[in-house]
Parts: sequence; C-alpha cells; structure tokens
Amino acid sequence: MAENERNNDTLKENIVYVGKKPTMNYVLAVVTQFNSGVPEVTIKARGNAISRAVDVKEIVQNKFMPGLKEKGIKTSSEEITNEDGTRSKVSAIQIVLGK
Amino acid sequence: MAENERNNDTLKENIVYVGKKPTMNYVLAVVTQFNSGVPEVTIKARGNAISRAVDVKEIVQNKFMPGLKEKGIKTSSEEITNEDGTRSKVSAIQIVLGK
Repeated sequence: MAENERNNDTLKENIVYVGKKPTMNYVLAVVTQFNSGVPEVTIKARGNAISRAVDVKEIVQNKFMPGLKEKGIKTSSEEITNEDGTRSKVSAIQIVLGK
Repeated sequence: MAENERNNDTLKENIVYVGKKPTMNYVLAVVTQFNSGVPEVTIKARGNAISRAVDVKEIVQNKFMPGLKEKGIKTSSEEITNEDGTRSKVSAIQIVLGK
C-alpha cells in the first residue's frame, strides 16, 4: 500500500505519450506503469502517431493484460506552431485503460 | 420523409471507410451522408488510416457540422491476410457521429 502511494505520487497522471518510437516501447511503458500499482493509464498521441496509440492499446489489452478495461476514448484538435511560425491544427487522441 | 426513407434504404449502414485518399474526400462523404437525411454516420479505418479517420471526425465536427455529437468510439483488432499468405493483426477504429 505504501508502495502504491509512492508510485501514485511520482507518476501522478500516469500518461504515456506515443510518438515515433517502435510500438513495443510504448506497450512496455504502459505495462510497467500498471505493474507499479497505478489503477489507470492514459495513452496520448497526436497526428500520425494516433494509429500507433491504438496499436498500443490493442496489444496491451489482447496480449499482456487481458483483464484491463477501456475507460474511455476521446479525440480533440490541437493547434501547433510549425517550424516556419505558421500554425496548423492536428488531431489528438486520449485512451484511458483501467484495472 | 419519403426521401429520407429511400436514402436510409440505399445507404442502410451509413458507413464511410477511410483509406489512403485525401482527408477532404472522406469529410465530404460524411457531410453528404448527413445532408441526405441519415441521423448517424459511422467512420471506419484500419492501420495507418486510423489517424486520418480521427482527422475526418474532427474536421466534420469543427468546420462543417458543429451540432454533431460523438456517439461512440471503439477500437478493435482485425486479422488480415498479407500478399504472401501470412496473417497479421491490424488495429481498427470505428467512430459514430450523430445529429
């Protein structure tokens, strides 16, 4: 219990940001967070990484932790500033998995 | 009303499959379906097209039809047969928008 409290404190929001690394890196990150005792993990991604975020969710649920429940999937639009200073919109996804 | 019934009949499931074409093609397909009178449209995609499906949803909701509600987002895994006969798993998404 004291162990769980400590982990909840250090990883308060339990978010895994999915980017361009291999999918299994993020799968491992999610599984590690659950094994550290947190009850929920949020997977976030933007743009092209959205597909990879869905892969991460499916692999975690189907191969590693079949008991996990999907607590919600939300999409949104975020505005980013490009290298040349112009602004453009990019889609984002947020997937919450819980025990 | 008769008009709506006819369209509901021909486009019974009101599904837009998102693939590799430009995003706006699919945005137009979704908006066209709603304008034909159907109350719900489902956006489906697999693999890398998942990111584009989320873009389609965000653009339809934010630019074209701000009154639309998100009725649900589901993800799943599907098994596909590759060209060489091997089978692999691919993630899929299904987004339901409704009036």
